Amino acid sequence: MKKINLTDEFNSIQSYWEPKIVGELNEDYVKCAKLKGEFVWHSHKNEDELFLVVKGKLLIKMRDKDVLLKRGEFFIVPKGVEHCPVGQPEAHVLFVELKSTTKMGE
Amino acid sequence: MKKINLTDEFNSIQSYWEPKIVGELNEDYVKCAKLKGEFVWHSHKNEDELFLVVKGKLLIKMRDKDVLLKRGEFFIVPKGVEHCPVGQPEAHVLFVELKSTTKMGE
Repeated sequence: MKKINLTDEFNSIQSYWEPKIVGELNEDYVKCAKLKGEFVWHSHKNEDELFLVVKGKLLIKMRDKDVLLKRGEFFIVPKGVEHCPVGQPEAHVLFVELKSTTKMGE
Repeated sequence: MKKINLTDEFNSIQSYWEPKIVGELNEDYVKCAKLKGEFVWHSHKNEDELFLVVKGKLLIKMRDKDVLLKRGEFFIVPKGVEHCPVGQPEAHVLFVELKSTTKMGE
């Protein structure tokens, strides 16, 4: 039960695409990750996923549209929706997702 | 399924202490609220509550300690913990809380 400073958390992250759990909230984890370039297409069968951009720009590609997020913007990818996150060129992103959500989506 | 710009959301809020639902994520709502001055002491019996400060400063008073949050910092008040949020003098705050969480806590 301590406060979290997002700048400090991102400064502590050395690798891309490796979310760090920074909080636990009911059935969710709050995570921080640095995203650079393109990830892979995937979906989460049973979980919505929130992406909040803290720094940089993040493109979320979906099959029917793309959403470009900049600092102070968030988007919730609904369960089952295929998406591919792309750091442009790099983004610091806060996630909120169910503890059951796996990295690549099941 | 649209992106949310937090600055736009806060600009649209005219009243203090009236959270606006800006997103729905699994069993949670994402809410924005402008907080000014002191609220009331309360607790949420079954729900943790996340406070992320987007602008200004927010003091979260608890019975055993206080936590002062500034922009880019968050704190999760665990279920059952009495707390009193205080905008110092004003804060723009993003919340994530279970849909079952009521305003004053039950």
